[in-house]
Amino acid sequence: MTPQLLSVGRSMHALAAELYPICRSITGAGLRQTLDLIGRQIRLERQEIASGTRVFDWTIPPEWNLRDAWIKDDAGRRIVSLAECNLHVVNYSEPVRAKMSLAELRPHLFSLPEHPDWIPYKYSHWERSWGFCLADRQMRALPEAKYEVCIDATLEPGKLDWGECCLPGQSQQEVVISSHCCHPSLCNDNLSGIALAVELAKALGDRPRRYTYRFLFMPGTIGAIAWLARNQASVGRIHHGLVLTCVGDAGDVTYKKSRRGDAAIDRAMAQSLRDSGKNHAILDFSPLGYDERQFCSPGFNLPFGCLMRTPHGCFAEYHTSADNLEFIRPESLADSFATALSALEMLEKNAVMVNVNPHCEPHLGRHGVLAALRGHDRSRELQEAMMWVLNLGDGENDLMAVAQRSGLPFPLVSQAAQLLAGAALVARVPDGQE
Amino acid sequence: MTPQLLSVGRSMHALAAELYPICRSITGAGLRQTLDLIGRQIRLERQEIASGTRVFDWTIPPEWNLRDAWIKDDAGRRIVSLAECNLHVVNYSEPVRAKMSLAELRPHLFSLPEHPDWIPYKYSHWERSWGFCLADRQMRALPEAKYEVCIDATLEPGKLDWGECCLPGQSQQEVVISSHCCHPSLCNDNLSGIALAVELAKALGDRPRRYTYRFLFMPGTIGAIAWLARNQASVGRIHHGLVLTCVGDAGDVTYKKSRRGDAAIDRAMAQSLRDSGKNHAILDFSPLGYDERQFCSPGFNLPFGCLMRTPHGCFAEYHTSADNLEFIRPESLADSFATALSALEMLEKNAVMVNVNPHCEPHLGRHGVLAALRGHDRSRELQEAMMWVLNLGDGENDLMAVAQRSGLPFPLVSQAAQLLAGAALVARVPDGQE
Amino acid sequence: MTPQLLSVGRSMHALAAELYPICRSITGAGLRQTLDLIGRQIRLERQEIASGTRVFDWTIPPEWNLRDAWIKDDAGRRIVSLAECNLHVVNYSEPVRAKMSLAELRPHLFSLPEHPDWIPYKYSHWERSWGFCLADRQMRALPEAKYEVCIDATLEPGKLDWGECCLPGQSQQEVVISSHCCHPSLCNDNLSGIALAVELAKALGDRPRRYTYRFLFMPGTIGAIAWLARNQASVGRIHHGLVLTCVGDAGDVTYKKSRRGDAAIDRAMAQSLRDSGKNHAILDFSPLGYDERQFCSPGFNLPFGCLMRTPHGCFAEYHTSADNLEFIRPESLADSFATALSALEMLEKNAVMVNVNPHCEPHLGRHGVLAALRGHDRSRELQEAMMWVLNLGDGENDLMAVAQRSGLPFPLVSQAAQLLAGAALVARVPDGQE
Repeated sequence: MTPQLLSVGRSMHALAAELYPICRSITGAGLRQTLDLIGRQIRLERQEIASGTRVFDWTIPPEWNLRDAWIKDDAGRRIVSLAECNLHVVNYSEPVRAKMSLAELRPHLFSLPEHPDWIPYKYSHWERSWGFCLADRQMRALPEAKYEVCIDATLEPGKLDWGECCLPGQSQQEVVISSHCCHPSLCNDNLSGIALAVELAKALGDRPRRYTYRFLFMPGTIGAIAWLARNQASVGRIHHGLVLTCVGDAGDVTYKKSRRGDAAIDRAMAQSLRDSGKNHAILDFSPLGYDERQFCSPGFNLPFGCLMRTPHGCFAEYHTSADNLEFIRPESLADSFATALSALEMLEKNAVMVNVNPHCEPHLGRHGVLAALRGHDRSRELQEAMMWVLNLGDGENDLMAVAQRSGLPFPLVSQAAQLLAGAALVARVPDGQE
Repeated sequence: MTPQLLSVGRSMHALAAELYPICRSITGAGLRQTLDLIGRQIRLERQEIASGTRVFDWTIPPEWNLRDAWIKDDAGRRIVSLAECNLHVVNYSEPVRAKMSLAELRPHLFSLPEHPDWIPYKYSHWERSWGFCLADRQMRALPEAKYEVCIDATLEPGKLDWGECCLPGQSQQEVVISSHCCHPSLCNDNLSGIALAVELAKALGDRPRRYTYRFLFMPGTIGAIAWLARNQASVGRIHHGLVLTCVGDAGDVTYKKSRRGDAAIDRAMAQSLRDSGKNHAILDFSPLGYDERQFCSPGFNLPFGCLMRTPHGCFAEYHTSADNLEFIRPESLADSFATALSALEMLEKNAVMVNVNPHCEPHLGRHGVLAALRGHDRSRELQEAMMWVLNLGDGENDLMAVAQRSGLPFPLVSQAAQLLAGAALVARVPDGQE
Repeated sequence: MTPQLLSVGRSMHALAAELYPICRSITGAGLRQTLDLIGRQIRLERQEIASGTRVFDWTIPPEWNLRDAWIKDDAGRRIVSLAECNLHVVNYSEPVRAKMSLAELRPHLFSLPEHPDWIPYKYSHWERSWGFCLADRQMRALPEAKYEVCIDATLEPGKLDWGECCLPGQSQQEVVISSHCCHPSLCNDNLSGIALAVELAKALGDRPRRYTYRFLFMPGTIGAIAWLARNQASVGRIHHGLVLTCVGDAGDVTYKKSRRGDAAIDRAMAQSLRDSGKNHAILDFSPLGYDERQFCSPGFNLPFGCLMRTPHGCFAEYHTSADNLEFIRPESLADSFATALSALEMLEKNAVMVNVNPHCEPHLGRHGVLAALRGHDRSRELQEAMMWVLNLGDGENDLMAVAQRSGLPFPLVSQAAQLLAGAALVARVPDGQE
């Protein structure tokens, strides 16, 4: 890993660290504070939708804001406190202030017996209830006593917020990159995804773009549903989509294919991972996971894949206090960045190149392309790639297909195509006419 | 195996035992007696077709009836006798009464040197000849002598009989289940198939049926050809077909696919076997085997598969006296019954379910379906199955396809679909409009 | 291997030995002498195209003729001489006569350090230059001295020659077999291919032919391009094509598929190799290799595969003096002949056979076909093959497809089809109506 790439990973980790303490949810001040901080890194357009608004089969919930929460023992000592860890409070808990016995309190307490020192993350977005999460070791040690509990929260009409960063390109065709930003102090799920999206937006913001890129920072599920409801008329602009989540742990990269299974983003991710030579896994689509569930619902069936390292549910730290800043690594974040950027660059450079003289091989020597290879350290592979680009230049194959069929890495194929195009031996089929 | 299921297997074995002694052939009294006994178990409509009738490329043969047959030695002792085993006489032997030397007799004697105690089963339906089958040990011990042979048989114009049991369903679309009933005292081939068909007819007769079921008890080859000739105009009603044979031995279940290879019956059997978790084999179609040869001839190409345990020719007892009542086991018969019934139930329950709100996931909590899951011992898998039914509810996938793609068992997928249909979240595409 | 087949291999080796000493190139007297010798074996129609003629993207080069070439040392002794090995001169070297130091000479000398006793083969068809190839052991031992070099060559307007052997068949549909004949003293590449083509032409010339066969003996690349330019209007007649090269070494047969990947020639070669039971490899098409590069260029996309043993670049002797008469073996040449002929015979015999009575099986006994099987040593397999031909006789499957699906060898399937056709049970779909 180059020092430049590692420093990108460090910068991603630093953003995660900055966002970590915030008490986030699918609505409320923590979500807005999160979007504010993202907005300091990249230009973010803010959107909102009022509580009570119908979005497809759903209704935007009342806004939840939490000022404080604690459990006090007989002696009035805070034994559980929001200030220590915002996972202590069941997300979207209704307000409560009461004294009760341990027996009365127990149904409102949640812990993880198999990991006695970890605090679980629990939420109750759609059913009114309240509760506290705590380490199992602490819970089992609670003495019989009179406890006082307080959740100083409001659940009132308000709004659901999200942020969009749009980077216009030469074409109105869009690449949409989505990362949910509703989880409280959990790093892999999904401060890692947010940090990756921010870094991609920075990197792509600095260069000419073929596609228009739209980065979505939205609460999971209800945010994606609201966005799709608002943008239903224009989803036809989306040519490629990627959901980013759990991209910071030490595991190998996992790519989950779109519902279509053979979308360009699926082929780009597969080729990019093959080219990388690194261990990786490619999973078929399933309707369980993250916001690809909404983007790939049958009425939309958009070409969204999901980039992860270890998938949710396959690491013990998932939805617990152990998904913390130590669990995500700058090296992993950097590698996820490189992987995603490589696939996006492939989509940028992908094209259908038509062989201008399709009868027999051209006499490469006459066109100066062989001279261009001289001294090139991969001249033999480049010439091989040229042969493939020419032979498959029948209008049926894009460059990703050439790479796939030839077994050559995409960058080589793309470079060969550029050399041939420079010599007017192949011509690019204009976008929209492929 | 539940006691109920095992008792079904015992009842199947008992029917095989009842049919075992009868001297059957493709025509004649033994065949009629067989159909009479089946008719005591289920309502059987009898059909017949006269000798000499042309059916496609074939002609219904004269009827064969055998009163007695024996070989007597010098001393007038019956050394081979029909009364001992009806395999002793080559099936469809012409009548004979003569005295001859061992040398003259020998070309008419058949035995199995590799199994010296077994009597082979031989037949000569389409060429006039006569012969005896006997144990090789006995044949090799025959002394030079003058033998008297008698086959007291008739080969005269008559008819070919068969039986049909039709169970009308809500739809005129038919499931046809066929088992040949022409073999003499051979148990796996095919008293086992007859017993399975009878038991399936009983089981399906007791319940509401979507499909109309037609059970065919016919002589092999010529019977199926006669039936197809008579019913050529209406085979379009047949949506699924299954040939049953060799379903009683101790081996694993084998399913041989229809010529189409991807018919619904093929998918149902494969899914049912996958769901069972038991060892099994699935074979591609071949034009060798049983009456699927006729149903799957290219002019018909009907969706008939073949359910077996050990395929014919893969067990040494095939077409010998060792294919007896000990060779078939109640446990195997019961397991074949359960396997076939499970596939038929799958076809009954299969449907194309369309997601009524295909844009984004529905809010399951609002529709009461999550409440229905509470306390269910497989609530997590059921919710997963619901997600799959909704996501693949685009009108292109039936529930068997949902099970196949999701890797979930069909009953779970079907139950999920029912819950969703109950909440009006999916709608069933009417039969004939899939 | 039968003695007859081995003697074919010996005759192929003898032809290679006869052609071996000639100093060939893509034009000139050596090429014409080669065609003359081939013309003594089979009837060869000679074609030519003038230097300077444009063929697609290429121009026919000036003709190269080499009278003598040598390097002399200080003492005037020939230390390198054309007379010893024609690989010593870089093919298409421009004329030179000069005295120079070792330092001046060195850029014009080529050797193979990894094989110090072999002389490499080098050429410079499209760039004016000159050079000598020699054993690395000799090159490293050259003392500092004044050397005299002479390449007595001409590069003048002339022509490019090729030869065609056309064997007319019942149909104007053509099988084209091409082997490049431009390489100097190199045996596997491609005197082996030339010898195989000659032997196939002899064998096919002696028998009735369904297809018209055209054997092309042309210089590689530019020859094929010239031929395609001249014959562009009539390439539609070509139904099957095969490039022959490197067919004499001791390795297993390798078949490289056409660009189409599922052309009849691809299926025939695969079936023929499967039927042979011998080790072999089947490679996907790639646009690197021999004249299949031109025949399979996207504007033509003709169904040309390439038959080889060890592919070029996979044997160390490739393009060196070690590719000599010992490197190719009569046994290998004979096996390549048998393999190619078997695939061509398969194409000759291939047909779509339609089942005349597609409803149920025919009564084979009535049509005399079972009688035809009696005593046949493979009667069981033949009857099985008949069942397959009948069952797949729906007009969708040719006999190669029947062999492939049934797993039976093609000759058995073909024989079964002939028996059935003889009994009027199947009918052949006329060529052009498949």
